[in-house]
Amino acid sequence: MEPTTSLQLLSLVKEPGELEVSLKRIPVAAPKPDEVVVRIEGTPLNPSDLGLLFGAADMGTARQSGTQDQPVVIATIPPERMPAMASRLGQPMPVGNEGAGTVVSAGDSEEAQALLGKKVAVLGGAMYTQYRTVKAKACLVLPPGATAAEGASCFVNPLTSQGMVETMRMEGHKALVHTAAASNLGQMLNRICIADKVGLVNIVRSQAQADLLRGQGAAHVCNSGAPTFMEDLTEALVATGATIAFDAVGGGPLAGQILGCMETAANRTAKEYSRYGSAVHKQVYIYGNLETAPSTLTRNYGMAWGVGGWYLTPFLQRIGREGQQKLRARVVAELKTTFASHYAKEISLAEALTLAGIAAYNKRSTGEKFLINPNKGPALPT
Amino acid sequence: MEPTTSLQLLSLVKEPGELEVSLKRIPVAAPKPDEVVVRIEGTPLNPSDLGLLFGAADMGTARQSGTQDQPVVIATIPPERMPAMASRLGQPMPVGNEGAGTVVSAGDSEEAQALLGKKVAVLGGAMYTQYRTVKAKACLVLPPGATAAEGASCFVNPLTSQGMVETMRMEGHKALVHTAAASNLGQMLNRICIADKVGLVNIVRSQAQADLLRGQGAAHVCNSGAPTFMEDLTEALVATGATIAFDAVGGGPLAGQILGCMETAANRTAKEYSRYGSAVHKQVYIYGNLETAPSTLTRNYGMAWGVGGWYLTPFLQRIGREGQQKLRARVVAELKTTFASHYAKEISLAEALTLAGIAAYNKRSTGEKFLINPNKGPALPT
Repeated sequence: MEPTTSLQLLSLVKEPGELEVSLKRIPVAAPKPDEVVVRIEGTPLNPSDLGLLFGAADMGTARQSGTQDQPVVIATIPPERMPAMASRLGQPMPVGNEGAGTVVSAGDSEEAQALLGKKVAVLGGAMYTQYRTVKAKACLVLPPGATAAEGASCFVNPLTSQGMVETMRMEGHKALVHTAAASNLGQMLNRICIADKVGLVNIVRSQAQADLLRGQGAAHVCNSGAPTFMEDLTEALVATGATIAFDAVGGGPLAGQILGCMETAANRTAKEYSRYGSAVHKQVYIYGNLETAPSTLTRNYGMAWGVGGWYLTPFLQRIGREGQQKLRARVVAELKTTFASHYAKEISLAEALTLAGIAAYNKRSTGEKFLINPNKGPALPT
Repeated sequence: MEPTTSLQLLSLVKEPGELEVSLKRIPVAAPKPDEVVVRIEGTPLNPSDLGLLFGAADMGTARQSGTQDQPVVIATIPPERMPAMASRLGQPMPVGNEGAGTVVSAGDSEEAQALLGKKVAVLGGAMYTQYRTVKAKACLVLPPGATAAEGASCFVNPLTSQGMVETMRMEGHKALVHTAAASNLGQMLNRICIADKVGLVNIVRSQAQADLLRGQGAAHVCNSGAPTFMEDLTEALVATGATIAFDAVGGGPLAGQILGCMETAANRTAKEYSRYGSAVHKQVYIYGNLETAPSTLTRNYGMAWGVGGWYLTPFLQRIGREGQQKLRARVVAELKTTFASHYAKEISLAEALTLAGIAAYNKRSTGEKFLINPNKGPALPT
């Protein structure tokens, strides 16, 4: 039977200073000839989703409203953070970059019909919903036997981790550095680099995270909490020749420390003094914001350096459709190995809107990723 | 008569913690067939020269030594700055990026012979000397009637200012921002942008500097000391569409403020909210170090941004020989207009090594550029 309505999670900056997150029952769009309807059975809470979900609200102020089946969460947005939210004021925003599930209805085209009953993964936003109508060509068919949970994170982390290695190659570097490297994404990147024989310097913030990555075969792990961090990092940079870094931390001195150690490593082999520093270009791309303080750059690493933002969408545009297909094919082929994701817990849409649920998944702690199953749990009211 | 010796300025990190600047009598290399000997009659003290001349020394500790004709200056290098100086320890370094003078001797080749007696400008380092042997093809013949003083700054500022406009074009921007914009370089850039009808936002640090640039026809001048600076800058960015900046200041919040105002300007016309900020790439290139404090980046300008080092040499390599010829031809054609430089004072090599001289030219104040004439003054001892 064709689903006609779907519970949809919406994030709304309702008025200046107030965020409301709620569930709304919306009609399911009937599929056009080239479209299918996917019953979403797994959709992860990625850091990038949390950014859209809670915006600039202070979630310490969150309070529960609504009913148990249709909960509402209200939180305060500090006045100084409102300018960044001005352009989403009054617009209810659906959330959820990616997800996976079963094709339950299909348009008339051959391409769409071929997907009926298949388990597929989709990247396209608005995935925190029970049913989602999408283009057939946007669907990635999961390998036989794969569950929706296994396919739920087919895009963001697998394409981002491959995107880092591809960016390294495209920009002429031979090895790379990654921070917050014990994350789901970092473990994935570590597996790619081992398989592809690419030098990787993992920066983590605790001995436990260092042990975790070493246990997964990482050759170079530096603990930024250790007193020997700068020396350790320099040695790892000399050993690998890494001159590009992807940084999830963003704030504080870390990006600049990486550039400084890269410069020291480059000068190890320099034959003569150059007032402009090493001619080797050193690059740090900031792709996350775990530390919201300003980044401080001491600029004691010559003139051949760059720091900038990096994220997936412009990278995918840069490599074009053919490049994207290559990366996607690898995700399908290595879904249960290289690109395996692990979830601390699977929750329903309603559970995602409880204060206890938010407190748990909004910690963003390493290895504590949550999965929403919008079709989980007791039947929700229609 | 062929000169056989030349007084040469040398900067030496003599031992850890000590800088020595002195004049040494060196032999003049006889010209090979494709070379000429230039009597240097004007060579500027650019900020980039000062960086090599004094290195990381604290010039507040400078003390005079040597004789009146062959003075020596000694200064202390603070221990924490020695790591950056390690690779020049024990190597006497000649100084002076560019200069101009008369060809007094030439090799046998037609190209070299054609330059005999001509006034030429040269880029090539080690110009703080009386006679310099260089490749004939490195010489830029000055237009008839031009003096060595007029030709002394043919390269660094004229190529840097043109390089900024070319980089803007090559990287797809349509207007640019410049900081410390009342400098010799900034005034030159202002003249180029007026001639080429390129939008330019000048950032200065005082009302006097703003008046100076406005008096030279600058349409957009923002005073970073004014309480309305951020609003003024945003309006100028909206008016010009500038999305790339060249920053001589380096430290403090300025680079990040420019990115923030660029983002605000870009979002003025945005139709819908994007969690990643405006898709317009915003770039700040730091090419100077007037403020040595760390640069602080608050990263509240989306993900499409970059900050990096910029300097002339890699830019010239990037545009190749043909591109360079085009820029040089314009310098010669517009030497007395667009690319005119002004000097506060002309000094001898010996005067450059007096404490009073250093105190004056090392201030690096706007409009206070000094010119060395190594062949000026009383005959120096041989």
